[in-house]
Amino acid sequence: MSIPIGVVGFRGYSGVEAVGILGRHPEFEPVLLEHRHDAGDDRKLVRKSGPRRAAASPEAAREAGVQAVLLATPPEVSMDVTPGFLAAGIKVVDLSGAFRLQSAENYKHWYKEDHTAADLFSEAVYGLPEYNRAQNAGARLISNPGCYPTAANLAIRPLVAAGVIDRAAGVICDAKSGVSGAGRKATHKNSFCEVTENFSAYSILRHRHVPEVLMTSGLEEPEFSFTAQLIPIDRGILETIYFRATKSMTAADIVGVYQKQYENEPFVRIYEAGHVPDLHAVRHTNFCDIGVVLDAATGRAVVVSAIDNLVKGAAGQAIQNLNLIMGFEETAGLL
Amino acid sequence: MSIPIGVVGFRGYSGVEAVGILGRHPEFEPVLLEHRHDAGDDRKLVRKSGPRRAAASPEAAREAGVQAVLLATPPEVSMDVTPGFLAAGIKVVDLSGAFRLQSAENYKHWYKEDHTAADLFSEAVYGLPEYNRAQNAGARLISNPGCYPTAANLAIRPLVAAGVIDRAAGVICDAKSGVSGAGRKATHKNSFCEVTENFSAYSILRHRHVPEVLMTSGLEEPEFSFTAQLIPIDRGILETIYFRATKSMTAADIVGVYQKQYENEPFVRIYEAGHVPDLHAVRHTNFCDIGVVLDAATGRAVVVSAIDNLVKGAAGQAIQNLNLIMGFEETAGLL
Amino acid sequence: MSIPIGVVGFRGYSGVEAVGILGRHPEFEPVLLEHRHDAGDDRKLVRKSGPRRAAASPEAAREAGVQAVLLATPPEVSMDVTPGFLAAGIKVVDLSGAFRLQSAENYKHWYKEDHTAADLFSEAVYGLPEYNRAQNAGARLISNPGCYPTAANLAIRPLVAAGVIDRAAGVICDAKSGVSGAGRKATHKNSFCEVTENFSAYSILRHRHVPEVLMTSGLEEPEFSFTAQLIPIDRGILETIYFRATKSMTAADIVGVYQKQYENEPFVRIYEAGHVPDLHAVRHTNFCDIGVVLDAATGRAVVVSAIDNLVKGAAGQAIQNLNLIMGFEETAGLL
Amino acid sequence: MSIPIGVVGFRGYSGVEAVGILGRHPEFEPVLLEHRHDAGDDRKLVRKSGPRRAAASPEAAREAGVQAVLLATPPEVSMDVTPGFLAAGIKVVDLSGAFRLQSAENYKHWYKEDHTAADLFSEAVYGLPEYNRAQNAGARLISNPGCYPTAANLAIRPLVAAGVIDRAAGVICDAKSGVSGAGRKATHKNSFCEVTENFSAYSILRHRHVPEVLMTSGLEEPEFSFTAQLIPIDRGILETIYFRATKSMTAADIVGVYQKQYENEPFVRIYEAGHVPDLHAVRHTNFCDIGVVLDAATGRAVVVSAIDNLVKGAAGQAIQNLNLIMGFEETAGLL
Repeated sequence: MSIPIGVVGFRGYSGVEAVGILGRHPEFEPVLLEHRHDAGDDRKLVRKSGPRRAAASPEAAREAGVQAVLLATPPEVSMDVTPGFLAAGIKVVDLSGAFRLQSAENYKHWYKEDHTAADLFSEAVYGLPEYNRAQNAGARLISNPGCYPTAANLAIRPLVAAGVIDRAAGVICDAKSGVSGAGRKATHKNSFCEVTENFSAYSILRHRHVPEVLMTSGLEEPEFSFTAQLIPIDRGILETIYFRATKSMTAADIVGVYQKQYENEPFVRIYEAGHVPDLHAVRHTNFCDIGVVLDAATGRAVVVSAIDNLVKGAAGQAIQNLNLIMGFEETAGLL
Repeated sequence: MSIPIGVVGFRGYSGVEAVGILGRHPEFEPVLLEHRHDAGDDRKLVRKSGPRRAAASPEAAREAGVQAVLLATPPEVSMDVTPGFLAAGIKVVDLSGAFRLQSAENYKHWYKEDHTAADLFSEAVYGLPEYNRAQNAGARLISNPGCYPTAANLAIRPLVAAGVIDRAAGVICDAKSGVSGAGRKATHKNSFCEVTENFSAYSILRHRHVPEVLMTSGLEEPEFSFTAQLIPIDRGILETIYFRATKSMTAADIVGVYQKQYENEPFVRIYEAGHVPDLHAVRHTNFCDIGVVLDAATGRAVVVSAIDNLVKGAAGQAIQNLNLIMGFEETAGLL
Repeated sequence: MSIPIGVVGFRGYSGVEAVGILGRHPEFEPVLLEHRHDAGDDRKLVRKSGPRRAAASPEAAREAGVQAVLLATPPEVSMDVTPGFLAAGIKVVDLSGAFRLQSAENYKHWYKEDHTAADLFSEAVYGLPEYNRAQNAGARLISNPGCYPTAANLAIRPLVAAGVIDRAAGVICDAKSGVSGAGRKATHKNSFCEVTENFSAYSILRHRHVPEVLMTSGLEEPEFSFTAQLIPIDRGILETIYFRATKSMTAADIVGVYQKQYENEPFVRIYEAGHVPDLHAVRHTNFCDIGVVLDAATGRAVVVSAIDNLVKGAAGQAIQNLNLIMGFEETAGLL
Repeated sequence: MSIPIGVVGFRGYSGVEAVGILGRHPEFEPVLLEHRHDAGDDRKLVRKSGPRRAAASPEAAREAGVQAVLLATPPEVSMDVTPGFLAAGIKVVDLSGAFRLQSAENYKHWYKEDHTAADLFSEAVYGLPEYNRAQNAGARLISNPGCYPTAANLAIRPLVAAGVIDRAAGVICDAKSGVSGAGRKATHKNSFCEVTENFSAYSILRHRHVPEVLMTSGLEEPEFSFTAQLIPIDRGILETIYFRATKSMTAADIVGVYQKQYENEPFVRIYEAGHVPDLHAVRHTNFCDIGVVLDAATGRAVVVSAIDNLVKGAAGQAIQNLNLIMGFEETAGLL
């Protein structure tokens, strides 16, 4: 019998993805939790079907048998509803930035608004399973990593740990994302005619995902610079990461560092030296694909890291975390 | 010396196109007339340049030497500002639907709002130059044809006139448009993620452009059916038009009808029998391209008519009309 | 334990889709059968994984335990390899047009080449499960329907059977497809710069899929006209179908005809009267979605039928057929 | 009276662009020079029109009155035909890489083939008008710059000259291009289904345009790294360039450097400090737009440089050069 999992924000792009994965999951069943924040219509099918529905309240969720909720909501909604679900004994995986930065001050600096549930920072676990797996398993509240930081941290952290990056020379992350990363809200900037046949940079050097990379990658602030750019596609993040190697080494050496770190990881795939992923490699999957090119003469290296922003960058990783906190195989429903 | 031409609604997609064509025009110079309806920012260039600006009032326009205005505005704005410009002796080419239907009742039926300048219907000329050239030349107020009707009327009218369409069997127009046809306003429906990798029909059998086709093509209402559909592209309209021939004829016979009608027309191009245009053929041009395929065994014919909705379907045709009312070569600035 | 299913043509777009579905299927496991016709490289991953491989010969397939094969190959390859697989006791679901038309003469007329395995027509079953379910179950060789005919036949046949179409007035099918329908072979016509921001018609009134519609829909040749057009998207077919109703009826009446026909069908979804599907509704699914709009005053009706050309139009329907001939739940692996 | 200018390679994307610009040029008239290398059909219009045609031989070109030719051809064709045109007294602007690197050895290293007209290196002028204007004016043979180097050199050279780049820390150029940059030849890699909804890197750290940047920007090889990436759009190049400032400075200081360098340049536009261009800003124009963001705390700077690869990156710049060698206003036909 399937375990009911609530989804708040089920009309947003991450929410739709979460409902889809839960619907194919061997252990879970999605329950749509309707919040006043929702907007939009359902398809006008003669025979209605699809997941059960309930109000987005702790009471209604409990009545529906919901044991955990995924919050595919803006941070202000996540802050608002999380305490109630936790108090009702319902575990929470939050896909927003509400609980990632672990200090109200830090949150205010990057998100430009006050935090209204700062007492929950102490128990929120930053859910990057490849590094926080053990902690996740016992958590009540998981803060699901941001899309850009997931691709960046999986690529950078092993290299910092192995000491192969010349940190004085800095690490540059030139990141590109599909438009679904900006959410479902209609804006002029994200309208079709503005995006198609275009390419544009935004939040240069000051994107709110930067502190997540600093928290996890092992780099210090002056060492890391980040630029986000919009590709005219629906989904996918590709990051081109530039650094200098600390000593004479080959691309194969760096591939070796990744292999050692990730050899048992189900969702990280490493490419042969000199080969890198494109976005079709990861589209609609929970994989993070990583490849390296290195110019031996100068020691300059280029790492390409690619994910689907709605899967490994949002709903897929959330369900990977949900599998962990609910005691199932980490890959269930995701391969 | 260039003649100043005002553009109201210069930030909308048709307005941008109009400003661009006027900027390259040998006789005209664009003046941006700022209306409260405008929204959006300019590019942050260090050295500002570009067209002169003035308020969108008759007084300011006259002070700027404006002799005619193009209204690239919604119908309610066009109805509001047209009387003032005319009273000030400034000619008007209106790109909206405000003055096309020529009766307040008809307008209300299709546009779902009251008409506030119905006294102007009597002098508004429906500006399809290929058929109304003589009338245009003396007009103060030209109502620029809709994008869909331009492609439809140029394709259908010569065939109705020549009696080659079996009207009892009906004429079906399956029309497809790029997204700029929906204007610049941000809506969920026109957001990138909803449009890309999609194709959708809307206003099936009840599009507000239908009455313009009935006014001009020679068809009666029960004979014509029209469906509008959205292509995931920026600009372009392609209409696939189906009918039965009245008698045994070939595609070449129908091509002959078109050739005879349009042999001196600078902006209508006809294809050899059996060949039809695609949208790249007309993109960024003021051409309407028309081709025919016919199955001699059954008499079924397919006509494809293609335009750029922002040029021949809007700003280009408006300037073709402007050339006429200002006494210049009809093709000036448009080839 | 999973049943090995061979896929010939596994690098083509339908083949990739088939391998993906088989990989997620509860009863089957894909085996890649390498044919000289294949081209292209695999991703350069450090840890290789993915399906087993064998040569595309009956012997190698049997050795790999293969019980049935999907041929995602051009018709000339399908004709070439089918007899061998059948002789080896391996069932065949062919996705090409090789065995659809059921006469060598008809084949030559539409495919412009000789048929080399015409003796197999007698046992090839045209696998549109919604109509041929019983026959499929006992077949050794299933000819999987074409993409365009699948969407057309599911929409038209119930209406012909119920007598609601005025056949004398004809049925027009204005069909639009994504580019993957043209296969994986690089051509100038299908190159990115030719397709993007374009829309084009091809094979007007003479597409090779027409005879499949005539075989199954119940319409006669002079009654049906078909135009295929290319949308700048990866995948999806949307057909806009025009006809006149035989008598005074409403859209709801026609919806009722569909409901009655398809109420127990797992893969056909009907929309409420006046609503129609777009391509996002069916993308990456095995559904055929159908909706109707009708103008009661004139009796003109518009039906929109949408499928994913690579799923219900190819690999998904092939596996639906495979489920039938192998004795499993028809929906296994497809919901 | 217009001066006839020959275009060899008039069906390629740069060639089409060149013919279009010449057609609108106040002084020139295009003549299509047909080379065996050409492929493809013309539109099947009933009334043929368009530019004159001649064979791509010096004799035929002279007979047609051609005074200069634009070679929009692959380098091997350019090397083949250039000596003949020059011998016939016809000036040449070559858009290929044939004469850019100025040594046969260097050419062979980057282009992997022998140079067959190496004696012309001595008189070939590298035509970046913003820096080589005086030399261009007297040249018989201009080697038109590559698309990527045009955007890179215009952005980097003034900063190297002004000493504001910390060269020891290196300059990274993360470049993105639309698909037309790859030319018109059909390849699997450039087919619609492979490009759409994708993003991919290629030629990482070893693109053949790197030596052009080293020749002109003032940087030395170990200081510069370059990655080329494919955006799913038709046209446009955007380069995101990373470096560290040599000393404490603001974005406005760097904008000041650009303003000083380019204040009289008609085709270079600088953005206010903190603002950068997108591709829509330069699409279908001969502008190179440049903007800067700088993090004062760390001295890290990001420069964005954008051009239309077919205009300023190819045909537009070629005609800018042609204006110079033929003695016309440099901007003629290009604003």
